[in-house]
This record gives sequence, structure tokens and C-alpha cells, in this order.
Amino acid sequence: MEFSARQIAQMFNGTIEGNPDVVISKLAKIDEASDGAISFLANPLYTNFIYSTHASIILVNQDFIPIQPVNGTLIRVENAYSAFAHLLELFSSTINISRQISSHACISGSARIGKNNYIGEFVSIGDNVITGNNVLIYPNCTIGADSVIDDNSILYPGVKVYRDTRIGKNCTIHSGVVIGSDGFGFAPQADNIFKKIIQVGNVVIEDEVEIGSNTTIDRATLGSTIIRKGVKLDNLIQVAHNVEIGENTVIAAQTGIAGSTKIGRNCMIAGQVGIVGHLVIGDNVKIGAQSGIEHSIKDGEMYLGTPALEGGKARRLYVHWRNFDQIIKKIYELEKLFKQIKS
Amino acid sequence: MEFSARQIAQMFNGTIEGNPDVVISKLAKIDEASDGAISFLANPLYTNFIYSTHASIILVNQDFIPIQPVNGTLIRVENAYSAFAHLLELFSSTINISRQISSHACISGSARIGKNNYIGEFVSIGDNVITGNNVLIYPNCTIGADSVIDDNSILYPGVKVYRDTRIGKNCTIHSGVVIGSDGFGFAPQADNIFKKIIQVGNVVIEDEVEIGSNTTIDRATLGSTIIRKGVKLDNLIQVAHNVEIGENTVIAAQTGIAGSTKIGRNCMIAGQVGIVGHLVIGDNVKIGAQSGIEHSIKDGEMYLGTPALEGGKARRLYVHWRNFDQIIKKIYELEKLFKQIKS
Amino acid sequence: MEFSARQIAQMFNGTIEGNPDVVISKLAKIDEASDGAISFLANPLYTNFIYSTHASIILVNQDFIPIQPVNGTLIRVENAYSAFAHLLELFSSTINISRQISSHACISGSARIGKNNYIGEFVSIGDNVITGNNVLIYPNCTIGADSVIDDNSILYPGVKVYRDTRIGKNCTIHSGVVIGSDGFGFAPQADNIFKKIIQVGNVVIEDEVEIGSNTTIDRATLGSTIIRKGVKLDNLIQVAHNVEIGENTVIAAQTGIAGSTKIGRNCMIAGQVGIVGHLVIGDNVKIGAQSGIEHSIKDGEMYLGTPALEGGKARRLYVHWRNFDQIIKKIYELEKLFKQIKS
Repeated sequence: MEFSARQIAQMFNGTIEGNPDVVISKLAKIDEASDGAISFLANPLYTNFIYSTHASIILVNQDFIPIQPVNGTLIRVENAYSAFAHLLELFSSTINISRQISSHACISGSARIGKNNYIGEFVSIGDNVITGNNVLIYPNCTIGADSVIDDNSILYPGVKVYRDTRIGKNCTIHSGVVIGSDGFGFAPQADNIFKKIIQVGNVVIEDEVEIGSNTTIDRATLGSTIIRKGVKLDNLIQVAHNVEIGENTVIAAQTGIAGSTKIGRNCMIAGQVGIVGHLVIGDNVKIGAQSGIEHSIKDGEMYLGTPALEGGKARRLYVHWRNFDQIIKKIYELEKLFKQIKS
Repeated sequence: MEFSARQIAQMFNGTIEGNPDVVISKLAKIDEASDGAISFLANPLYTNFIYSTHASIILVNQDFIPIQPVNGTLIRVENAYSAFAHLLELFSSTINISRQISSHACISGSARIGKNNYIGEFVSIGDNVITGNNVLIYPNCTIGADSVIDDNSILYPGVKVYRDTRIGKNCTIHSGVVIGSDGFGFAPQADNIFKKIIQVGNVVIEDEVEIGSNTTIDRATLGSTIIRKGVKLDNLIQVAHNVEIGENTVIAAQTGIAGSTKIGRNCMIAGQVGIVGHLVIGDNVKIGAQSGIEHSIKDGEMYLGTPALEGGKARRLYVHWRNFDQIIKKIYELEKLFKQIKS
Repeated sequence: MEFSARQIAQMFNGTIEGNPDVVISKLAKIDEASDGAISFLANPLYTNFIYSTHASIILVNQDFIPIQPVNGTLIRVENAYSAFAHLLELFSSTINISRQISSHACISGSARIGKNNYIGEFVSIGDNVITGNNVLIYPNCTIGADSVIDDNSILYPGVKVYRDTRIGKNCTIHSGVVIGSDGFGFAPQADNIFKKIIQVGNVVIEDEVEIGSNTTIDRATLGSTIIRKGVKLDNLIQVAHNVEIGENTVIAAQTGIAGSTKIGRNCMIAGQVGIVGHLVIGDNVKIGAQSGIEHSIKDGEMYLGTPALEGGKARRLYVHWRNFDQIIKKIYELEKLFKQIKS
């Protein structure tokens, strides 16, 4: 597949600076690109590479101002990252999965499998499971009874879905994900023993959700643990029972959300965050990496630190933290001076 | 299944406030309950819902004092949460697992399988494995050679048990759990290379233990990593080689315990805690979420923060932390005033 | 297998203090050893046990100075831990895996399997996969198309390898590890929706790498996520897309490394550390447990805390932290005294 700068500029309604006839046949990172490749610049951390890259074409945002000459042809577009993502799709060799049901899968007689499914080897599908059309279930997955997996969803190898789970359309579930395991609910007894609370709820995953490898989502005690439309979860995340995550919220790796907490829409939660149970996190909330959230958060706020504080305040406190040596020194100086006055 | 308030009060030795003849046929959360449902109030965070719930009956603790009228019938019991847990068990549709051994499981000829086992599809059971009676092993589990799984234990789909593991009676092991992988032991060599220390120990899990999804428990270098009776581990927990966790200790998600640390009985360890290796944590210890434990802890203490301090002290320091802006301001004021005096 | 103290001293070029003819037939931890066992002392935390141990022989480092009499025979060696590790290997009953390909494995007709492989039950091996000689693939693993697994590498049960992954020689991959899942890359759209960036790169794992249970390593967006020779990763670690980890670097459990960060050689990174994306961590860097790394780090530095600071400074600040009560008290005293002066 080959495209000229002119063709690419047309695709993305971009403007060309340099040779419009230069042709690319591959995609590459700006710091690894060679002749004949197209690359992009979106992250300011990589700006320096644009002056040394061997890429033939570089997609940049409209507002990019070079401070040195650039060798390749620039194409200015509204969103260089998005444009490059489109090219990636265009170039990615479509993985040819034969849409077949392996003779080494075990599918319950009461399950209803949609059209054009791929069901890999050693997949176990329980009673009354329903799959939509174009569903891909890779090898070694287990789908518990009464679960539903809707159209175009993909389960990579070794996904474990407990009974009565709902997975929407166009979802991508990566390897090792566990959906629907029991919530961590135990009632303490007089003799220090913990008695298990039966978890009779389920997990509902709406459309367009992506879930990263080895993430775990527990079923609700009663009702449902709910992952709303468009949510993106990274790897090794813990979602406890009865949690609800609002539409298009994005959560980075190793974050944990304790039971019954509700998270709003369009939130951005960084990695290794811990959120206590029974909270309400509003819409459009941002939470910094490794934060510990103990209290509910209102719409649009930014929180940071452990225990988490409003972002501006947290950043000021971290400045004091870094200056703590000087602060202590100043106190001792004051004390000393003070003693001199007194004496 | 239907019960009147009178019948339920009898079950739990409770007292009725309201209509003793009202009948319920389902269970629900207090904030989602509709007519004909029974709910409960145990967590003070949910107290407000008792005045608006549509539940026909609400289980409350003896000491609950309403500050507004409640529509439903109250039943006061000793432990509302425990009582509700009993009702959950009563109502939970018993999942009918056919107690059969799948023809798609591979079981070594030298394994001894107990009575009334369920062994799902694509389960691999190694040489000399012994299972007790009423053991459930869901699809895609692998049980290594010489392991023992005792009566009534459940392994959900995709559990991986390495060779020579002991699992007691009435244990519940959730999907993706790994038991018995090698401890992380390497001896540094002169050339910066790390040489693997062979891990010849094993993992012993006593009775009544529950282990959450994708938790990992490493085998001992020598001897055993031991999880004592009644321990409850949440999801994505790391238990390193030669760790021992005492009876009825409860640990929340994503906590990590480094090698050779011993944890006592009846401890409550919150989520995302890190505990350094070779420590001794006493009995009845409580550790707050995200804490970093560097030192051994005595019986009955409460620790918090990173690095963790005794809980009362830690809380005072966090008050100072939140006031750090004011503290700095005060220092500058003192300095300024002091300069005025001097001049 | 039996050895006398004399034989063991010879093996490790050690010197004997005590009876050279005493014989051992087993290995044990110093605090659990009984008569006829050999143990070792390397960690100073265990020094006290040497005076009470029942071990017949104890390996110690050259510089060990007993402060009480020791019952057993001491053998002084250059590195007691390494010597003991050698004995462990000698004594560990070689696990007899029959080097066969299970008739319950599914291997693509286009895959090329090396000599003397063990391929367990319910292993799925995709098109064009190549395995070297003496490769062990335990049950329930899935190997995606076009992947390569080189000589002597071991994949424990339930490892999931996505397509086009490279695994070098002598690697050990523990259960539940996921290699090659999609990087967490999404381009925000105007309507708050996140559009997936196709991840067309792969994962390259060089020789002598060990990867702990349930660790996840994402494929690169473009190019490769690279784990260099001799790297040791513990359990439940997150390695994001386009990360590179340098030779012989060791990382403890539950650490997470965000996208495109490069880590140097011979680093030691403790558990539950979080490292932000797009950083450069130098060679020989040490990072303390639970640290949050926001900035690049130069060769040979030691960092600690969240946000992480140079280790010496971080430790001083934690001393201030512990003294915060006293510091506040002093400020109030100064203020009070100041007011007295003024009045």
C-alpha cells in the first residue's frame, strides 16, 4: 500500500509543507522512522525528533511551529494523533481469523451461537449462553451459563466469564480478564470467623468497552456491577462488587475501585489509584496516579495524592514537601534568633 | 419463595415495628428495592435511604433510631447484615452443576478423584493428584502433579495449581488464581547476572479459605507458603514465597506481601497495601489502604500511611499535611514580625 | 543423597569450623532445620537463629562472626546464599516431564515444533508458530500465530501469548502471564468518545528472562515492547506498550510501567512502584517500594517516595514527617513567645 503526501493531505483535510509527491509505504515512530515511512508528532516530549527523523512524511497538528528546518514533508492536520490512528487501521494487516467454530470447543446444546462467530479450541460455553453475530472467542475461554455476548465483541485467549454476565456490542476483552467472580463480602461472626455473603447479582458491560489483560470485575451482591458504554479499562484493574463506571471513563493500569462506588462519565483516572467503597465520583473528574480517594468528588474536579486533595492544593503541598529541609532550617533559625533577642 | 415479616422475625429472633403480615418474595438493595422486597440497613452511609426505600421490610440493627417515619416494616435483629446474608443463601437459586467428570477433561491415570466431583471441560489433572468429595473444578483449570484438593472445595474456571500444592476443605478459589508459582528468588552474580534459586517448597492452603480472582501465591523456596484456616483474600493480591497468613485474616484487593513475612490471626488489611519481606505482623492488626509497611507490628495495633505509622499519629500528621499551607504562612509571618522587631 | 561437611566445603572452596565428618541428607531453612539438614545464613535478620538451629551444617559468609557458640558445623564460603542455591539444584528432584506432545493439544499444521518439546493438554498453537528444542509448554496455554519460542524456554499453565511475539532462549514464563495484549491507546474524539489506536507492534523477550504469574506485557503500538536479556519480573507487574527494560534489571511485584518508558540495565525496582510514561530511567538505578516516578532518572541514582525524590533527601523528609507533631509544636511556641515579647 502506497500513498503520496497529496493523497494523505486529502484524506485528513490537511495542508502540505514540502514535496507533495513524496510517497510512503509504511508507518513508524518518529524516532525509529526510515525513508519511505510516515510518522507523526503529537506528544511535545518527542518534538526534538522531528528535526532528526528520517520519516518522509510527518503528520503534525495545525499549531506546530518548527524552530529548525525539517527534512521530511509536513502535513498539518487538525489532530495528528487521530489521523495517524486512521492510517494504522488502513495499514494493519487484517488478521485473518477463520470464522469457524472449532471442533475442539465444547458448546452446550442449549447455547445459541450467532452468525459468523469464531470459537477457538478449548473454549467452554455453558447452558443458555447467547452470542451475537461476528463474535470472536479465542482459545481457552470459559463462558458461564446464561451469559450473553453481543455482536462484534472479541474475547482474547483465556478470558473467564462467570454465569449470567452481559457483554455488549463491539467490546474487546483481553486475555486473563475475569468477569463476574464473587464480590468480596463476608459478615464477621462472634468467633472471628467470616461468613461468606452469597453474591447473587451479576456484571453488565455495555457497548464499546475495552478491558485490559488480567483485570478483574466482580459480580454484584445484589443487582449489577455496571461498566457503561465506551469505558476503557487498562490491565490489572480491580473493580469490586456493585461498582458502576460511567460512559467513556478511562482508567489506567492497576487501579482498584472498592465496593459500591459510582464513577461518573468522561473521567480520567490514572494508574495505581485506590478508591474507597461507597463513594460517588462525579462526571469529568481527573485523578492523578497513585492517589488514594477517601471521599466523594464533585463533577469536573481534579484530585491528587494520598489522601487525595484538590489538585492545585496537592501540588502546593508537594512544593512544601520538597522544601521541607529549608522550612525546618528556617524554624531553627527563627528559634535561634529569638533566643538571642530574649537574652 | 415467600415470607411474612412475622416469619422472618422468628428466623432471626427479631422484633417487628410495623405490619407483621406484610409478605416479601425477593431481596434488594435499600436504594433499589421495590414493593414486595426485603432489604437491610447496616452501613451508616445508607441510612438516608431507609426513609425513601420502597422495600416492604427492612432489617435493621437493634440500636437503629429512625429520625423520620419509615414506610416499610422494620425488623430489629442482632446483626442485620448477617441476617440478610442468611436470606440471600435461602433465596439464591442453587446453581445446578451436574456432578460429572467431563469427557473433555484429561485426568492422569494415577490421580484419585473423590465422590460426587464436577470436573469441567479442558481441565488437566496431573499424576497422583487427590481430590476429596464434592469438589468442583470448572473448565480450563490445570492441577499440577502430587497436589491435593480436599472436600467441598471449588476451583472456578482457569485456576492454575502448580505441583505439590495442598488445598483444604471448603475453599473457594476464583478464576485466574495461580497457586504455587516459583518464588522470586535470584542470587546476584559478579557479572550483574541473576542466578535463579530453585524453589523446592510448596503452598499449603488450609480449610475455609477464599481467594479472589487473579491473585498469585508463590511456592516456598524451602518449606511452605501457608494460608491458614478461614483466611479471605480479595482479587489481584500478591503473596510471595514463604509468607504465612494467620487464621481468619482478611486482605483486600491488590495488596502485596513480600517474601517470608508472617501475618497473624484476625488481621484486617485494606487494599493496595505493601508489606516488606521478613516482617512479623501480630494478631488483630489493622492496616489502612495503600499503606507501606516497613517494620514489624505488634498485636492489636493499627497502622496507616507510607511509611506506615501508628494510626493515631498518622492521622494527626495528615491533619498537619492538609494545613501545610497555613503552617508555611505562619512561619513567614513570624519571620516578618521578627524582622520588624529587630529593625 | 548424602554429603559430609568435608565434601560440601570442597564443592564451594569453604573452610570448616566443627566436625568435618557430619553428614547431611536434606536442606532446610535455618529456623525450621532438624538434625541431618544443612541450612545457611545470609540475611542478617536471621542471625539469631544460628544459635538455636538444629541444622547439622550451616553455610555462612566468610565474614560471619558468631557472638555465641553455634551447635552445628559452620562452613565459611564466599557467598552462602549462592552456595545454598547450588545445593538446592543438586537436591531438587528433577521433575520428570515426559517430553511428549499431548494428543489433546491443537497445533496448527503450519507450526514448526522443535525437538524434545513437551506440549501439554489443551494447548493451542497458532499458524506459523516456531518452537526451539527442549521447550516446555504446560496445559491450557495459547500461543498466537507467527510467534517464536526459542530453546529451553518454559511456559507454565495458562500463559497467553498473542500473535507475533518473540520469546528467547532459557526463559521461564509463569502461569497467567499475558504477552502481547493491545497497548492502552485511544484517541479522544470531540464527543468524549475514545477511538482505539490499532496496536500493530509486538513484544520481544530476549534470553534468560523470568516473568512472574499474572504479569501483563502489552504489544507496541508500532515497533516492539522489549524485555532485554536476563530481566527478572515478579508477579502482577504491568508493562505498557513500547516500554523497554534493560539487561539484568529486576522488578518486584505489582510495579507498573507506563507507555514508552525506557529502563536501563542492572536496575533494581521494588514492589508497587509506578513509573509514568515516556521517561528514561538510567542504568544501575534503584527505586524504593511504592515510589511514584514522574521524571527521568540518571545512571546510578536511588529514588524513593511519591513523588519520588533522590533517596537521601527522601529519607530526610520522612524524618521531618515523623517529627511533624514536634515541628508544629515548636512553631506554636515561637508564636506564643513572640506575642509575649511584643506585649
